[in-house]
Amino acid sequence: MIPLQFSDIQAAASRIAGIAHRTPVLTSRTANARANAQLFFKCENYQRTGAFKFRGACNALARFTDEQRHAGVLTYSSGNHAQAIALAASLSGIKAAIIMPHDAPALKVAATKGYGAEVIVYDRYKENREEIGRRLAFERGMTLIPPYDHRDVICGQGTAAMELFEETGPLDVLLVCLGGGGLLAGSAISARALSPNCRVIGVEPEAGDDGRQSLAKGEVVTIAVPDTIADGAMVTHLGQHNFEVIRRDVDAIVTVSDAQLVDTMKFCAERMKMVVEPTGCLAAAAALHGVVPVAGLRVGILVSGGNVDLARFAALVTA
Amino acid sequence: MIPLQFSDIQAAASRIAGIAHRTPVLTSRTANARANAQLFFKCENYQRTGAFKFRGACNALARFTDEQRHAGVLTYSSGNHAQAIALAASLSGIKAAIIMPHDAPALKVAATKGYGAEVIVYDRYKENREEIGRRLAFERGMTLIPPYDHRDVICGQGTAAMELFEETGPLDVLLVCLGGGGLLAGSAISARALSPNCRVIGVEPEAGDDGRQSLAKGEVVTIAVPDTIADGAMVTHLGQHNFEVIRRDVDAIVTVSDAQLVDTMKFCAERMKMVVEPTGCLAAAAALHGVVPVAGLRVGILVSGGNVDLARFAALVTA
Repeated sequence: MIPLQFSDIQAAASRIAGIAHRTPVLTSRTANARANAQLFFKCENYQRTGAFKFRGACNALARFTDEQRHAGVLTYSSGNHAQAIALAASLSGIKAAIIMPHDAPALKVAATKGYGAEVIVYDRYKENREEIGRRLAFERGMTLIPPYDHRDVICGQGTAAMELFEETGPLDVLLVCLGGGGLLAGSAISARALSPNCRVIGVEPEAGDDGRQSLAKGEVVTIAVPDTIADGAMVTHLGQHNFEVIRRDVDAIVTVSDAQLVDTMKFCAERMKMVVEPTGCLAAAAALHGVVPVAGLRVGILVSGGNVDLARFAALVTA
Repeated sequence: MIPLQFSDIQAAASRIAGIAHRTPVLTSRTANARANAQLFFKCENYQRTGAFKFRGACNALARFTDEQRHAGVLTYSSGNHAQAIALAASLSGIKAAIIMPHDAPALKVAATKGYGAEVIVYDRYKENREEIGRRLAFERGMTLIPPYDHRDVICGQGTAAMELFEETGPLDVLLVCLGGGGLLAGSAISARALSPNCRVIGVEPEAGDDGRQSLAKGEVVTIAVPDTIADGAMVTHLGQHNFEVIRRDVDAIVTVSDAQLVDTMKFCAERMKMVVEPTGCLAAAAALHGVVPVAGLRVGILVSGGNVDLARFAALVTA
């Protein structure tokens, strides 16, 4: 297969233009002072459905044939990809069925149903969602669009970093949260094209450093479901397509602790007036807690999403 | 005195350019669907110091003579103007003293001190802050910049609506929160110049409808300190300069309840991922709760600030 390249992301950008939001890039002098750097926050928490996932979903569905559109789309997701597929499908008049873990945040389940999708629940600790997905897709003739291990999904996600670089010009470092690798792989392709000297760094939760292990070993490493508050990064292994891009275009992968994520959530709420979900804080936490050396540098930070139950948010930021 | 006009606001815009943020204008399809209108949120919660007040403070201090700069600035404020003067003064190397109510939110007091200002506490239910201000200004030779009843302050605040109209073009309705009238008066001047047919509507808390009473009576009406969660609007009367503009350029003043403010805070956090303080929700509440008829219209909403203690925020949105 032809390796993914920047022209694929440019094509995705044309497909999703006018459907996905061009999200704002925010700056904060308080954040800059704390990190002793110039930070540019690309705020995908203001994306439709509250997370970057809408970009990939839109791009994937825009490429459906008439036959695929008629049969519908199927996916599995811990949450944000579910809402993204549900809304993107609803906007295109495509039927959607979503396989969701039984312990997904209530807000995400409700939002997915609210967009008119069918929700099928599974146990994330006992069942294999990929297997369930493949079986149901076969039985129903629906097209499976997985949350990250898919070329169209990766290219859609890469449009966020593309917009960021268009606004900021070249950067020294780009920090991107890492779960399955959709956002990181897409961002890395955009960075290579638009800011060739930018160091691209993936940030994953301490409890689930399969990405770091994979990069070190040179192959996809699978771990147990990680125990972390970053529910969007509770994945056991990188996607294969994602890994191919990550090993080629990503410079390093680092980890942050749940405590650092909570502190970053508080900082974002108190000083930047933003609601960011735990997973969405991964990249910012790496800059604000000195996990990645950024002093004196121009740093892009992908804020991936803001979907967190208000009660959970309140409990975390007041703990 | 020459009545304030749009050229005064344009002059303020030049003075504060590069010091105050040009804040983003956000839209939300969920909010649009709920209000059955096109809403444009001008997000001053992302302004430096977390509120629009920084604009007026910057503009006022930029006009100080060398003598005034040397003697320093004095003000009284329930919070956001305090931080605004404190930061603006600190950026210009001017000494600042701030008279604050004893029950001001802890976050605001801490932030004001953090910017290097001296804080002088008074009892908002027993003492008259304007009197204390005048006395201290006289004793110390400092220039008093009150939070709203001041031409330079009004003109600085008017730059927010100016930026909004520059981005959106003409609007049908502009909703602005109303405490002492700085933001409303400034916004109305900008609206008259940039969108002459736009209805400009002030929104104040139900418990403190002195603005509505004043407009009806044709003179400034003074009430008791209102009991409302909108701490930024706990003022007893409009400023005289503000009232002159408001009676000339504002079409109506409406009120919203504290319950409507809390609902709007939740909506902003859950659906728009924004932390907005209670006072900052006044304008949005009027649109989202049908207090002002907006169906089918293009509506500007000034989100005035986001300074709320996280613990208080958490308690309000989970109540």
